[in-house]
Amino acid sequence: MLDSVKALTFDVFGTVVDWRSSLIREGDALARTKTVRHVDWAKFADAWRALYRPAMDEVISGRRPWTKLDDLHRMTLERVLRDFAVTGLGEADVDQLNRAWHRLDPWPDAVAGLGRLKRKYVLATLSNGNVALMVDMARRAGLPWDAILGAEVARAYKPQPEAYLRTAEFLGLRPDECMMVAAHNRDLEAASALGFRTAFVVRPTEYGPTQTTDLAASRAWDVVAKDFAELADRLGC
Amino acid sequence: MLDSVKALTFDVFGTVVDWRSSLIREGDALARTKTVRHVDWAKFADAWRALYRPAMDEVISGRRPWTKLDDLHRMTLERVLRDFAVTGLGEADVDQLNRAWHRLDPWPDAVAGLGRLKRKYVLATLSNGNVALMVDMARRAGLPWDAILGAEVARAYKPQPEAYLRTAEFLGLRPDECMMVAAHNRDLEAASALGFRTAFVVRPTEYGPTQTTDLAASRAWDVVAKDFAELADRLGC
Repeated sequence: MLDSVKALTFDVFGTVVDWRSSLIREGDALARTKTVRHVDWAKFADAWRALYRPAMDEVISGRRPWTKLDDLHRMTLERVLRDFAVTGLGEADVDQLNRAWHRLDPWPDAVAGLGRLKRKYVLATLSNGNVALMVDMARRAGLPWDAILGAEVARAYKPQPEAYLRTAEFLGLRPDECMMVAAHNRDLEAASALGFRTAFVVRPTEYGPTQTTDLAASRAWDVVAKDFAELADRLGC
Repeated sequence: MLDSVKALTFDVFGTVVDWRSSLIREGDALARTKTVRHVDWAKFADAWRALYRPAMDEVISGRRPWTKLDDLHRMTLERVLRDFAVTGLGEADVDQLNRAWHRLDPWPDAVAGLGRLKRKYVLATLSNGNVALMVDMARRAGLPWDAILGAEVARAYKPQPEAYLRTAEFLGLRPDECMMVAAHNRDLEAASALGFRTAFVVRPTEYGPTQTTDLAASRAWDVVAKDFAELADRLGC
């Protein structure tokens, strides 16, 4: 059944890159150069990320016109800065912090795993991140994408069906010729309902050491793997 | 003035790859396996390419709804096959020939030049070719694109302004932060009118040994180079 798969489409935040540790690293770096004190950057990262889904839901519901993720991040960042009483940052500092999402570090197995997978499959992003964010991240981290697709070019945020279906269409493939790779069961549920094949990669510390969600597959996904090396093994790469 | 350039956006057919020689090679290969005789594949390639602009103009004018290049190529291919009295090809053969555009060879300087340019600039396609075509071509030829953009994701064919402007927007850049690289003066004229920087790369045999067009720059483009190695030199890569 997996013989028909020609492309792997990837969730990126949490699946390919470790956004939480990276945001903490960026916050610490900012605190060393600016008079930003007493901020718990782990809590800051969690608070910022907690506003991710509600911001996107504004767009999905139509209450807000199409807005790319960089701009949603900027709006939510300003709220988190207020909530954490961070003051004294200029426009350039805030922009630099907002672009921390362009500088997320890959999980240790990601780059080597993608290199193996690329020999056999087309590799495309199917992320809610915008194109410029994904391009900057890929250049910095060495992620060998064949195409940057997903929300911005589809003009629809996951889990809207159009985000998945237009990505397959851009690749010239039927949904069942694409395999969605994600660390999030809900992403796979949405993709699977449209005919995508599915691979669940467990990332048990994406949300920190006390994570309680997505620790196991919620269904019998086509592949379940502990990292990209095991995914490559399972797919015969 | 070129210090502000952050991304190079590339015309592909003719600028990066040698479509004409590649189509001739594909025709010859087909003729060796099928009973297709007495076809002058150079004339066949020229006739097929001559229908490229009229087919796109149908879409630009609104007479035809959005149609990706693979599908325009297929319609024009069927006409050329009739005109050249080629018979005896099954559906799989015609599809294989249509996908010759996915298997075009790069000019000898292209891959090494792009490798040098990529160290300093974001490299994106700004081609009328669809995403799947560009992805297949890049994987086969080793073209190191950071992003596949252009007509299909912009949903507008060059020289429509939206093709250029939406590409810059996806890259998160102003037009003057992008440099259009093309072997065609008209492409650069359209990009330049929107604020793009411009690089003309001369490809004097794109249309064969007796080419009469685009042998020289029609204006004082920001850079004029004889190949991608000279382009990289000129841009300090």
